[in-house]
Amino acid sequence: MEDHEHIVSAYEEELSSLNNKIARMGGLAEQVLGQSIDALQGRDPELAGNTIQQDEAIDALEKEIEEQAITMIARRQPLAYDLRQIMAALRISSDLERIGDLGKNIAKRALAVVEEQQPKQLMLGLRHMGELALEQLKEVLDAFIERDADAALKVWYKDEEIDAMYNSLFRELLTYMMEDPRNIGLCTHLLFGAKNIERVGDHATNIAETVYFLVHGKPVSEERPKGDNTSTTLPLQRSTG
Amino acid sequence: MEDHEHIVSAYEEELSSLNNKIARMGGLAEQVLGQSIDALQGRDPELAGNTIQQDEAIDALEKEIEEQAITMIARRQPLAYDLRQIMAALRISSDLERIGDLGKNIAKRALAVVEEQQPKQLMLGLRHMGELALEQLKEVLDAFIERDADAALKVWYKDEEIDAMYNSLFRELLTYMMEDPRNIGLCTHLLFGAKNIERVGDHATNIAETVYFLVHGKPVSEERPKGDNTSTTLPLQRSTG
Repeated sequence: MEDHEHIVSAYEEELSSLNNKIARMGGLAEQVLGQSIDALQGRDPELAGNTIQQDEAIDALEKEIEEQAITMIARRQPLAYDLRQIMAALRISSDLERIGDLGKNIAKRALAVVEEQQPKQLMLGLRHMGELALEQLKEVLDAFIERDADAALKVWYKDEEIDAMYNSLFRELLTYMMEDPRNIGLCTHLLFGAKNIERVGDHATNIAETVYFLVHGKPVSEERPKGDNTSTTLPLQRSTG
Repeated sequence: MEDHEHIVSAYEEELSSLNNKIARMGGLAEQVLGQSIDALQGRDPELAGNTIQQDEAIDALEKEIEEQAITMIARRQPLAYDLRQIMAALRISSDLERIGDLGKNIAKRALAVVEEQQPKQLMLGLRHMGELALEQLKEVLDAFIERDADAALKVWYKDEEIDAMYNSLFRELLTYMMEDPRNIGLCTHLLFGAKNIERVGDHATNIAETVYFLVHGKPVSEERPKGDNTSTTLPLQRSTG
């Protein structure tokens, strides 16, 4: 009996170490994303450069988590909830790694547009979108730590808002490009930046699905309302002489 | 002894079933990517619609592969080369799933631009890029099946070509937008389409790294030449009166 308890507690320790790594990785992903948006809005090449470097720590943590998870599966042969815990860590670390990459990409674009005049209106839209994505990321990581499927579902539903903001920003950027072709270079970078933030939202949604599955052992059954429709729309044509 | 042989052979069978699923998934990913580019170039909404649907089979296969891989790790507790085989299947299926998504996204953009006049020159550039990405995907999947690290390395180096094509297409598209603002809507979709193809190339490169690691048990040591620099460049400003 003592032996059994000993094993259980070692397993719990391993699991808690795995979860701590996810929490650390999540904190770093939040940091990279937040800083990349600050760097883009503030035209701050130094901050952008630091942010690009910080992404490396996220990649290293993903490798660590994967290695630990696989070792745990092989040694413990976990089933049901125990297995779902480890699989959740694996999946979430993969989403966080991609969020880190997206942040790094935004930081690179910040470097590219450092010299450009940035229209305040557009930057506010982008910043607002970025803040919402960051908030979604924080909430879904809390939901994971608390094993709170309801909180995860809230994040899942709220992604529609990011998509709606992306649609509106997408149209605004196209309009701005059409009004003055000298804006095209800058706006193209901002378009890709906005798309990156929209994808961060998608990864937060993935994490929400993972948390839901972890808790309930079944997938979210409803179809997520999919709000990004920019890939199937074109702007209104204007007469441009 | 007979028992041991029996176990080994059951393991081999499981592994071969796993590899068959990867091969099937790879075939489907090639199909989705190829068709999405055909649909974009041929302005074919029916083909685009079919392609979007076909991506579902890829997602389903990824889930199957993950489940089987995890079961194998838990039951067999494989080490060294055996473990690498299973991890390779897991990683490659994740890259293939993302390639399927990218193809689906290109098909959606094909739907969006179905009514647009498409400049031949630009479409040829996009098609050429798409064909190279498709070729890379085929070659790296063959390298996986043959466990041929040298062939994988060739794919790894060749990704630079896709990046170079993307850079040149990126500039061409911006120029085209600046010349006539009525092109902005179409060109934005083509920009995202080109970026999607460039990312397919990145996933083929990931698979190449996975194959190399599978065969040699150590990562590709050199730094990959990174050719996509569009996130840090701006087009030359033109006077647009």
